[in-house]
This record gives sequence, structure tokens and C-alpha cells, in this order.
Amino acid sequence: MARITVYEVGPRDGLQNEAREVATERKLALVTALADAGLDRIEATSFVSPRWIPQLADAAEVVARLPRRPGLGYVVLVPNAKGLDRLLEALARAPERPRVDAAVFMSASETHNQKNIAKSIAETWPVFEEVLSRALGEGLAVRGYVSTALGCPYEGRVAPERVVEIAARLLDLGCHQVSLGDTIGVGTPNQVRDLAARMLSRARPEQVALHLHDTRGTALANVLAGIEAGITTFDSSIGGLGGCPYAPGASGNLATEDLVYMLHGMGHETGIDFEKLVAAGVLAQEVVGRTLPGKALQAELGARARAARAS
Amino acid sequence: MARITVYEVGPRDGLQNEAREVATERKLALVTALADAGLDRIEATSFVSPRWIPQLADAAEVVARLPRRPGLGYVVLVPNAKGLDRLLEALARAPERPRVDAAVFMSASETHNQKNIAKSIAETWPVFEEVLSRALGEGLAVRGYVSTALGCPYEGRVAPERVVEIAARLLDLGCHQVSLGDTIGVGTPNQVRDLAARMLSRARPEQVALHLHDTRGTALANVLAGIEAGITTFDSSIGGLGGCPYAPGASGNLATEDLVYMLHGMGHETGIDFEKLVAAGVLAQEVVGRTLPGKALQAELGARARAARAS
Repeated sequence: MARITVYEVGPRDGLQNEAREVATERKLALVTALADAGLDRIEATSFVSPRWIPQLADAAEVVARLPRRPGLGYVVLVPNAKGLDRLLEALARAPERPRVDAAVFMSASETHNQKNIAKSIAETWPVFEEVLSRALGEGLAVRGYVSTALGCPYEGRVAPERVVEIAARLLDLGCHQVSLGDTIGVGTPNQVRDLAARMLSRARPEQVALHLHDTRGTALANVLAGIEAGITTFDSSIGGLGGCPYAPGASGNLATEDLVYMLHGMGHETGIDFEKLVAAGVLAQEVVGRTLPGKALQAELGARARAARAS
Repeated sequence: MARITVYEVGPRDGLQNEAREVATERKLALVTALADAGLDRIEATSFVSPRWIPQLADAAEVVARLPRRPGLGYVVLVPNAKGLDRLLEALARAPERPRVDAAVFMSASETHNQKNIAKSIAETWPVFEEVLSRALGEGLAVRGYVSTALGCPYEGRVAPERVVEIAARLLDLGCHQVSLGDTIGVGTPNQVRDLAARMLSRARPEQVALHLHDTRGTALANVLAGIEAGITTFDSSIGGLGGCPYAPGASGNLATEDLVYMLHGMGHETGIDFEKLVAAGVLAQEVVGRTLPGKALQAELGARARAARAS
């Protein structure tokens, strides 16, 4: 069984969608709990404009105070040169510099890119060229995200050739890895297998991640298809936090506990402690003040509650 | 792509776990909506003692009034000879006899069988021998269910050899198909693939079904593993109704819409109309008076609500 790398995206992708204001202290406690569980790639925050996403206005403080541990690295989103400036300033202010990769993001579909970052895809490339050139010059690794890789809410089907073309260009610009996102959770396994195979004909496995959403319950089936095609890195979110769920009770991001439950059940190594992951899920629920959609989390908590009643 | 057969279990497995009393009329409306969506194998009710499951006390009336259509067949659970008597009486009373298969059920783990049907596995066989012999003599086909096929809440791991042994004996007794149930939703894909392969070394594909639960989010990944191993029949429940969910918001049965969404996305034929399936899901929510956990259902309803707001 292959070693599988899990990128935890809850602190950024999850918390940026929360209505409730979360104190910086609580965000850092969640990051610490995730690191305690053995997650060593954590998407911590984003230097997007606070006017757009006030939930992450404390990005500089989060970065400056991120826990440092051997082998523990972070990803921080920088939409443009200004975001990169803010990240570099925050890193310069940090008493001991954590390992932080920058991340750039765009969509594989024109309409979604326009709505998400207010630029056409063609207008996005020069921005990325500048960000990547400067970030790499400053010694930062850069991760690339490609949204709507399995379907677009505005355009429907997205041609896999187009996704691979964009992802390959991100790698050519110097991204160490591209994460292909099923932003609206419409993908199914044959489609994932096809996209993964196309991508892996152009890149090494460690250069490709899948970021799957469980909006229609297919996330783990798509993970399985991805693994069968040779993918070894997956993004997920503690408790299924975030990922723009479309309806009350509906899910966005694949929950980290669901992913890890399946991977461990299949004999894959992840370096993650499931018990401690559940503890991080409990903390995540406290932080956002509601029950999260992650199924393995709820099953585990339900089993504990029954055991407590029975004893 | 193989043709996949879906057994809809919501009217029995789902409604038997509901606290709310559901009028017979409403049950029949749900069955009709499911048949309208193209489901042609529907588990309609159970002749278990009304003292145990009062929700299904109207089993005889449901059977007598089931919609008849060419190609449409039902499954009705009969735990013992008395249950079979009641089914045969109900069929005799029906103005035009519907196609109804009887179903018998037991567990692959001793403790679960004892707790579920108050008999040891050894004590269960003579009951089944009588039921099967009489049912087959009356011209009924019989489906066999094996619970806890991927894990037991009391005993933990269940040996796949034991599951196959029990399933094979049910086939030997004359069951036309055995449905292997992941009662508590603990299975993962390699385990499913192993069990399916063992089972298919003893039986033809049309003799084997998988009944998967989505308690930990793995149901569709397990379906994919099952398909890859040669399984062509799956049980599921409209909206994810029933299946003993363990916590508020937690899931039991795999939702039919999630299954069909993935199967159609993969190019499999099912004979099911997804739009009409969503309509049946909406009706199921009205019947039980709450939001159901099926993800594709909620995603679809969310998309419709957004479209309505936007127009």
C-alpha cells in the first residue's frame, strides 16, 4: 500500500466560509490539534483582501504564531503580489520562521475564474508569473490550485485537456504541486481516473493532488479511483468544514476523518492518529459552534455516547 | 459499462426505523413514486411481529395494495413461518397478485443474530429451511440477507469465510440472491473487493448483492470496489432513509440518489430517471417530516433553490 499524503485545508478553506467570528487564538488551537494528530501539511490561512474575506483578516498574526515542529509545513494562499507581500512581511516578523509554502489559485473554467478572482484566465497568468518568480526567489515553494477541475457551476462540463493544460503550466511556472479541485462535488470515478491518468502522463505523482468535495457523496469513491490511477496526495478538511456547502446539512469538502478512516482501513500509511484526529474534529465543532458533516466523526462520537450510556 | 440493478429498501428498512407514524396511504404513495422513477425492485414491508415493529403493522394492507406494473417486483421480509403465512394470506387477498419475493435475514456474527432475531445462527437454519421450502413450494422466489457482513458492533471483525459460508448455504437452500449487508457501515474498499471476490468464486453475479451503509462516508467507494470485483446489484434507500443511523445527522443506508448519481456518471445503465428519483426523495422527506441525509438529494434541492432565487 502506498504512503498517502493528506493536506488539511480546514483552517483556511473551512474557516473562511464561517459566519461566526473565530478568535485567532482558537484558530491556532485548531492548527495545533491538527498537527498533534499527525497532519504535517496544513493550509493555515489566506492573504486575500480582508474586504473580501474578513474571516481571515488576521492572516499575518496566524502566520507569525503558527506552531513550529520538525517536518511540519503550512500552505498559505496568496491571490496576487500584494498577498505575497503580506505573507513575506508576516514571515519576516515571525520570531522563528515556520515552513510555509505559498499557494496560487485559479479555475479551469473561464466563468468561474472571473466570478472567483475577477479576472479572465488570460489575465491571471501574468499575476501568477510575478508571484511565482518572487516567491521562488524568496525561497518559498508554491502550490497551485485548479478549481472546477471536474465541472463548473456555470459552464457544466470542463474538458480534462483544459485542466491538464492549466495544471501543467502551473508546474512549468515552478509550482511544486498542483491540486485539482472538484469545487462543486460533481465528479464521478471514471472521470477522476481519466483526469488523473492524463495528469500523470505529464507529471510525477508527488506533483499532483486531488481536492475532492463530498457534495453528492462521491468523494471517497473518487479518492479510490484516484489512488488506483496513481495519485498519492489528497486534500481534505477536518469534520468536512467549509467547501461552500450548498444547502443546510449538505457537504462541501471531503472530511479528513472519512478520508483517513478509509485509507487506514485499506492499509495505507498516512502518519495520522485517528483518535487524535477525532479530538481535532471535536475542537473544530466547538470552534465553529455547530455539528460538522463529517460522517466518521459523527459515527465515532455516536459510538462513544452509546458506550457511555451503556456503562 | 455493466447494467446495474438497484434494490430500493426505503419503504421497509427506512420506514421501520421512523418514530413518526406513517399512514398506509402515504407508504403506498412513496412506493408508487419510486416505481415511477424506474425502480423495479422495491422492498415494500416486513411481516415481522407488530409487537416488535409497530411501524409495519399494516404489512398485509400494503402488500394487498401494491401497485402492479409489468416488470415491477417487490421484496417482503418474512422472519419465520408465521411471517410467511401472513404474506401468503395477504397475497391471496390481493385482487391481482403482485410479484413479491419473500426475504429471510440473519447475521454473519453470532451476537448480532442473537440480538436481532433472538436465535443463535444454528437455531436459525431450521426456521429458514421451513420458510424456504414452503415459499418455494408456493411459487415465491426468496432473497436472503446476511447482516454484519463487513463488521459487527459486538464482535468487531467478521471473517469473510464465515460470511461466504452462510451466504452459500442460503443459496443452496434455494435463495435466488443473497444481499451482503455492511450493517454498521464499517467496511472499506479492499475488504469489499476481497469479500466480493470470494463470494463470486461460489456464485454467479446475479446471485449476489451488496447492501452498503454510508455511516462513515465509504458507501460509494465500496460500491466502486464491488463493481470492480464484478458485483452488479446494490441495495439503497431513498434519501438515505433508515439503516439505524447512530447519531443525529449521521447516516445509515446508502442513499439511492447518491448511488444512481455515481452510476450514471460512470456510464452504467440502471433504468432509473434521476429527476423522478429526486421527486421521490422530496416525497420521502414529506412522509417522514424531516430532511433526509442523502447528499445528491440535498445538492439537487439546494441548486434548485438557488436557481429559483436567482430568477
